[in-house]
Amino acid sequence: MTEKPKAVVLVSGGMDSCLTAAIARQSHRPAFVHASYGQRTERRERQAFDAMADFFGVDERLVVRLDHFTAIGGSALTDKRIAVPEAEPGASVGKEEIPPTYVPFRNAHFLSVAVSWAEVIGATAVFIGAVAEDSSGYPDCRPEYYRAFQEVVRVGTRPETQIAIVTPVIGMRKSEIVRQAIQLGAPLHLTWSCYQGEDAACGTCDSCRLRLRAFAEVGIGDPVPYRAGVAR
Amino acid sequence: MTEKPKAVVLVSGGMDSCLTAAIARQSHRPAFVHASYGQRTERRERQAFDAMADFFGVDERLVVRLDHFTAIGGSALTDKRIAVPEAEPGASVGKEEIPPTYVPFRNAHFLSVAVSWAEVIGATAVFIGAVAEDSSGYPDCRPEYYRAFQEVVRVGTRPETQIAIVTPVIGMRKSEIVRQAIQLGAPLHLTWSCYQGEDAACGTCDSCRLRLRAFAEVGIGDPVPYRAGVAR
Repeated sequence: MTEKPKAVVLVSGGMDSCLTAAIARQSHRPAFVHASYGQRTERRERQAFDAMADFFGVDERLVVRLDHFTAIGGSALTDKRIAVPEAEPGASVGKEEIPPTYVPFRNAHFLSVAVSWAEVIGATAVFIGAVAEDSSGYPDCRPEYYRAFQEVVRVGTRPETQIAIVTPVIGMRKSEIVRQAIQLGAPLHLTWSCYQGEDAACGTCDSCRLRLRAFAEVGIGDPVPYRAGVAR
Repeated sequence: MTEKPKAVVLVSGGMDSCLTAAIARQSHRPAFVHASYGQRTERRERQAFDAMADFFGVDERLVVRLDHFTAIGGSALTDKRIAVPEAEPGASVGKEEIPPTYVPFRNAHFLSVAVSWAEVIGATAVFIGAVAEDSSGYPDCRPEYYRAFQEVVRVGTRPETQIAIVTPVIGMRKSEIVRQAIQLGAPLHLTWSCYQGEDAACGTCDSCRLRLRAFAEVGIGDPVPYRAGVAR
């Protein structure tokens, strides 16, 4: 039996990367990479990353600091002067305009770290849990973005390097992500999605609302703690 | 008279970025960005960056630390266990194979920082001094690489964001870079190219040899200090 090829998996600590990791390990030996970039909940996300890597038994881990995002700013996630939107209950999520939580060109930084590391450790794939449809409307979460980045990887690495950019959950609805994660035994209880809270999720930011709606559609309770009064 | 548009210029501190900055300021108001990434001569390159920004009177500056390159390794520039090649005098430079000074997928990190910053400060261009031909054979210094990255920028930023990736010296020979820098009054005396030395250039690494050959072809002396015994 031949050994599985190695893959670098970008693990933020949220549900999407949790399922992505569970999918990646079916075909690859995963190496996990995580970035702290001065985002509001970086401590909590890092904790989710560590717990998930322990859960999956992943020894090869890389944690990077991208502190320049704080200097660059321009996003509600990295500049505390910009408010995280809390839409009225019932307002649409997944709307057309780019929300203030968009971190300008962020995923290119994450992919660059993953590809550099993949080239050095001999991984043949980079998995990223971007979600295009039922999500926040970020331009760098769409399939055409990953197709374009794949071409940069092809021409920008050694001729013998072959790294596939894989986005296994990009077309899924959030409820489908919850369902598949449960089917694959992925540890949703270890994940963190809230943009604002680190001890209890706020339940009101876009990310919480997408998450709560997904669990409601599946008809099960979300295992992570929420602030008092959040309906779920 | 309308104000010039703003451009982000990636300034490493070498000759190529020095000329690129001089070219950029003809058409744009430049904002300079520099990255320290644990490379052997990072202190000296940062000094060259500061001196060049002072020379050009650039107030808008961003200096970032990309320390994960040290953890990732895989290059003679970021891993001291890998030797910087010192070819025999007279051996070819600009050879076909990828040299050990290649830093895996490095320029994607630099471009990502520049594009994120450009999107936030409203710059319409990112200038980078990549040189394809008379250079070190790095895959991420070729025109097709920048064309591919341009597409990532187009699809990966806000719909209203328009950022052109500009590589004004990519087709130049090193001697042409020296000639044009002199014509434009660019401060070659403030630049640093050596991969190894911080007080005096070694004169023997690939980068020094390309530089010395360029000055020899132009028929003028290189204004930066070299170690004793280096012919120039």
